Amino acid sequence: MQVVIAIFDRFTILDAVGPYQVFTQLPGAEIIVAAQSRGPVTDNYDVAQLTALASLDEVPRPDIVIVPGGPGQADHMTGGPLKEWLVAADATSTWTTSVCTGSLILAGAGLLAGRAATTNWLAMGELARLGARPCEERYVFDGKYVTAAGVSAGIDMALALVARIAGDEAARGAQLGIEYDPHPPFNAGSPATAPAELVAAKRAASRFASA
Amino acid sequence: MQVVIAIFDRFTILDAVGPYQVFTQLPGAEIIVAAQSRGPVTDNYDVAQLTALASLDEVPRPDIVIVPGGPGQADHMTGGPLKEWLVAADATSTWTTSVCTGSLILAGAGLLAGRAATTNWLAMGELARLGARPCEERYVFDGKYVTAAGVSAGIDMALALVARIAGDEAARGAQLGIEYDPHPPFNAGSPATAPAELVAAKRAASRFASA
Repeated sequence: MQVVIAIFDRFTILDAVGPYQVFTQLPGAEIIVAAQSRGPVTDNYDVAQLTALASLDEVPRPDIVIVPGGPGQADHMTGGPLKEWLVAADATSTWTTSVCTGSLILAGAGLLAGRAATTNWLAMGELARLGARPCEERYVFDGKYVTAAGVSAGIDMALALVARIAGDEAARGAQLGIEYDPHPPFNAGSPATAPAELVAAKRAASRFASA
Repeated sequence: MQVVIAIFDRFTILDAVGPYQVFTQLPGAEIIVAAQSRGPVTDNYDVAQLTALASLDEVPRPDIVIVPGGPGQADHMTGGPLKEWLVAADATSTWTTSVCTGSLILAGAGLLAGRAATTNWLAMGELARLGARPCEERYVFDGKYVTAAGVSAGIDMALALVARIAGDEAARGAQLGIEYDPHPPFNAGSPATAPAELVAAKRAASRFASA
């Protein structure tokens, strides 16, 4: 089973590495980090570089597509190699998935029209404008399309996906393998639980218009 | 404030990227991924490559040291450039931290003698043999030494550390910034909650002797 994580300049690296680490725990998964061309791809902070060991052209028919988010998402909404690859790969994929604003790329490619989906909490309005039905869930399954909320949500999404693919026991094994027993020291990981002034400040600084 | 994440061949990439993503949310943090020499460093699955943009020699005095784990940890227990750098960097660091079996490297360098610490659940016995006092906690503070449990625990540890450095409100902001509102679909992320047969199978396959 081939899993392609399609990265791009100014992506958010945890969006990609969270699901990556979960899928390393699934026996038989061949994971490939790919980009428009082989070589290092730099994240949105210009600090972390993950290497694409394949070009998108080299992996035209993955079983599972994972598209991370990040500010660079905006470069792939109206055309270009990533969008073209995604549409073609989706035609034969078993699962087409995203993390954070990666769902905007899926939606921009026309893959989420009328579908239930999620994204970064700041991009819910944008997701709606692109024709999807935003759901405030940690991850959303709609047919073969699976979308995760912001950044760290890709870990939860990937565990749920492993369960669909290989069963609950495999997913529990993956969870124990990455010792995912989360104990955040605060309860501020969503706009529903974070202090109101913090939520307002993040909204004010966001590149997205409010919903 | 300089944060150096010191990686090495056959590290576990989420150990490094979890804390990285948390620290990207802390204003004023200069984060540097470093290794013995500049260039791509490959993870323990030989699939993910993270680039070291600095050599360890170039960052001798970080404020915060973060050492990930992974099977490659075993190469750095008795000497070599990473161990030498770590001992020297620790002499002036404000915080010296680890994720997963990275704490074995800290312990091997003599930094955790008699100290409360944690590590991957499978390596608790090894941590004790190296002179630390293992604690079954998600993360452990003992003076300036902060150690996290396996793989994904680096996210929780980094949030707690951001709180110590910059206050609870900064940590809540970081948590919301990475939308860390974990909802794992199963409750199997620690040996205390995973099915007993799964725990036994992982112990049997482990490179570490039982505690």
